[in-house]
Amino acid sequence: MIDYATLFRANLPAAAGKYNGFPKYNFVGGHNDAASVPVDELIAAAGTVLKREGSTLATYGLNSGPQGYRGLREFLVKKLAKNAGIACTADDILITGGSQQALELINSLLLDPGDTIIVEEASYGGFLSRVRRFGVNMVPLPLDKQGMDVEALGRILADLKGKGIRPKYLFTIPTVQNPTASILPLERRQAVIKLCESYGVPIIEDECYSDLVWDGKRPQAMRGIAGDDRVIYVGSFSKSIAPAVRLGYIVAGWPVLSRILPLKTDSGTGAIDQMVLAEFCEARFDDHVAALRKVLKRKLGVLTEAVSANFGTAAEFEVPDGGIFLWIKLPDSVDTLKLFQAASKEGVSLNPGAEWSVDPAHGKSRLRLCFANPTEQTIREGVAKLAEICNREFGVPTRIANVGR
Amino acid sequence: MIDYATLFRANLPAAAGKYNGFPKYNFVGGHNDAASVPVDELIAAAGTVLKREGSTLATYGLNSGPQGYRGLREFLVKKLAKNAGIACTADDILITGGSQQALELINSLLLDPGDTIIVEEASYGGFLSRVRRFGVNMVPLPLDKQGMDVEALGRILADLKGKGIRPKYLFTIPTVQNPTASILPLERRQAVIKLCESYGVPIIEDECYSDLVWDGKRPQAMRGIAGDDRVIYVGSFSKSIAPAVRLGYIVAGWPVLSRILPLKTDSGTGAIDQMVLAEFCEARFDDHVAALRKVLKRKLGVLTEAVSANFGTAAEFEVPDGGIFLWIKLPDSVDTLKLFQAASKEGVSLNPGAEWSVDPAHGKSRLRLCFANPTEQTIREGVAKLAEICNREFGVPTRIANVGR
Repeated sequence: MIDYATLFRANLPAAAGKYNGFPKYNFVGGHNDAASVPVDELIAAAGTVLKREGSTLATYGLNSGPQGYRGLREFLVKKLAKNAGIACTADDILITGGSQQALELINSLLLDPGDTIIVEEASYGGFLSRVRRFGVNMVPLPLDKQGMDVEALGRILADLKGKGIRPKYLFTIPTVQNPTASILPLERRQAVIKLCESYGVPIIEDECYSDLVWDGKRPQAMRGIAGDDRVIYVGSFSKSIAPAVRLGYIVAGWPVLSRILPLKTDSGTGAIDQMVLAEFCEARFDDHVAALRKVLKRKLGVLTEAVSANFGTAAEFEVPDGGIFLWIKLPDSVDTLKLFQAASKEGVSLNPGAEWSVDPAHGKSRLRLCFANPTEQTIREGVAKLAEICNREFGVPTRIANVGR
Repeated sequence: MIDYATLFRANLPAAAGKYNGFPKYNFVGGHNDAASVPVDELIAAAGTVLKREGSTLATYGLNSGPQGYRGLREFLVKKLAKNAGIACTADDILITGGSQQALELINSLLLDPGDTIIVEEASYGGFLSRVRRFGVNMVPLPLDKQGMDVEALGRILADLKGKGIRPKYLFTIPTVQNPTASILPLERRQAVIKLCESYGVPIIEDECYSDLVWDGKRPQAMRGIAGDDRVIYVGSFSKSIAPAVRLGYIVAGWPVLSRILPLKTDSGTGAIDQMVLAEFCEARFDDHVAALRKVLKRKLGVLTEAVSANFGTAAEFEVPDGGIFLWIKLPDSVDTLKLFQAASKEGVSLNPGAEWSVDPAHGKSRLRLCFANPTEQTIREGVAKLAEICNREFGVPTRIANVGR
């Protein structure tokens, strides 16, 4: 046998655990509503697009080159113009294996060990954990109910400049911020762009959830406002259609994309996924997303009702205007990492706030609950169970109601 | 605007060129025969599998976890047992975005700058170019008509050991070697495994082309012979079904896979591609591959005939027993990098041998021609054109026939 422990490279991440299926009360992960997957329409789309272009599967990149299936990029050009106020062409888009790969590529483009980046104080845990592997310093940017605190950003940029540090980028999720669900107002977007430009700092704008604003109205994307690579844009179909298809994208100019392409070492993104989604989206995207929003908004209502009923005033939260998650503050006596461990043993999974925060202390008593995937009944049961566990472990909430069980 | 040149990380690969479509006479890339893509059957498979399991698209990784769609892994277990003599379970398989991603993951697992690896003296150009980015030393292993020279391997291992160097791995493409198309006999496989084990050196076995042996018979895979992680196995559906779908896989034990999984930062491989291929392969893989082999063997016949007719004795080659490429030696006076440049201008693309060789000097007068994608007529015309260009640039071949134009 081979002793691999002596062969692995330095600084490998920890080993993965074995997959044992999802827990019964699954409040983590960007999973979506199973009944909302447009199965019949995806089948129809597959039939149409493969009949028309299936033989192009014989070539790497179809007939579209390394940036991804042209049909999908052309749909995105129209979608981004209409919904996000972004003017771009198919040449400005790179299709990726989900927004995960998009972010990994951007980090691989820009980050050296020891670099500094600015990140919203609470942010996407998958981003935080992966960016840590690059060995960079993250400066947390305070958030309020509307999102990034512009004055604080000004202070941070000035302070870093005073220390001779130019941050590699500002990472923001302005539209349905993950995890706070805030939507950054237009004026703040403009101010952030101006501020960052004056310090020569690019903005990475992650818009994974922007299709899921309940009323369908959202401020213009920062990429749209800037109109150029002051803002690199990342989007995804995971939340609007289905996460398993793994389709995301980067919008950027050629000087950036031409340096990212050689870092995309998979020789392209899955073609059938791209073709089927392009065909489906061209005809049905808007209708589908409108229907999905209704389902999600209803589930959010079930969740907030269950949280209020079971936790009472112990749980503080803002009711989101979109998205798939609720960010909750519990009393300071609650350590949500410990709550997470206790709850996991009983089939209830949640995101402890520490993993969703640049400074773990910020998230110590906070947690994120995702509501798109569990059924309404599962949401009610799971939250009641969580309150029971939290009461047992921390005495919070002080009284346990038996609502919804 | 942002000055990105001052923000890019150190040692980025060179910028990509813009994609301008494929050349008319396209003898490069692992593209396949367009008419052989089983379009109608893929459509039928898509309908069946999405009807049955489409709603699982709502969850990351379907219901299969991060190693990939269970149906596809279960097909592979049977296929690998039957065709390659590999005993494994679905838990030993990780589905990847093509074998490209598989190799990148293995390299990310094992390679630190300054490490040494052993590579067949002529090998897959995409592997060589990417492994160079890891800053490792490659030791070329001599090949003969049957593949790896076992005695030479023994000398190399002993020599490295004498210098205190333990190579991180031996990389080999034993079955339809790329580019020489040799098939390593069973006895040599056994000897290589024994030799490598005695030095504690793992073997990375890349079997992308092993389904395309004309008579369907191939020696047992080295992974099958070893039966454990002395050999990590890489396979692909790119050559047997279609390259655009980007589905490859790694076969290894959990001590290896559990360290690779955290490096796969795309949150999974495209689900519809996986589902459709699994459904198709379960019913039709063997028939499909048998038919494809006939088409490819016929195209190879057209190619070898055209090369002989146009280049005469100036072109030396072994006739492959499988695969999609021909490795040709031209007289020493020919520099195929220069031939490549001249031919590219006239719509003929080829792989210069230097890019397919650990030591570029080894490949200076060699070239690789891929024959799966161009039509028979295009092969004839393209080879005649190439001979004409080669004659003009190098006086080789000395006489130009007008066969097949």
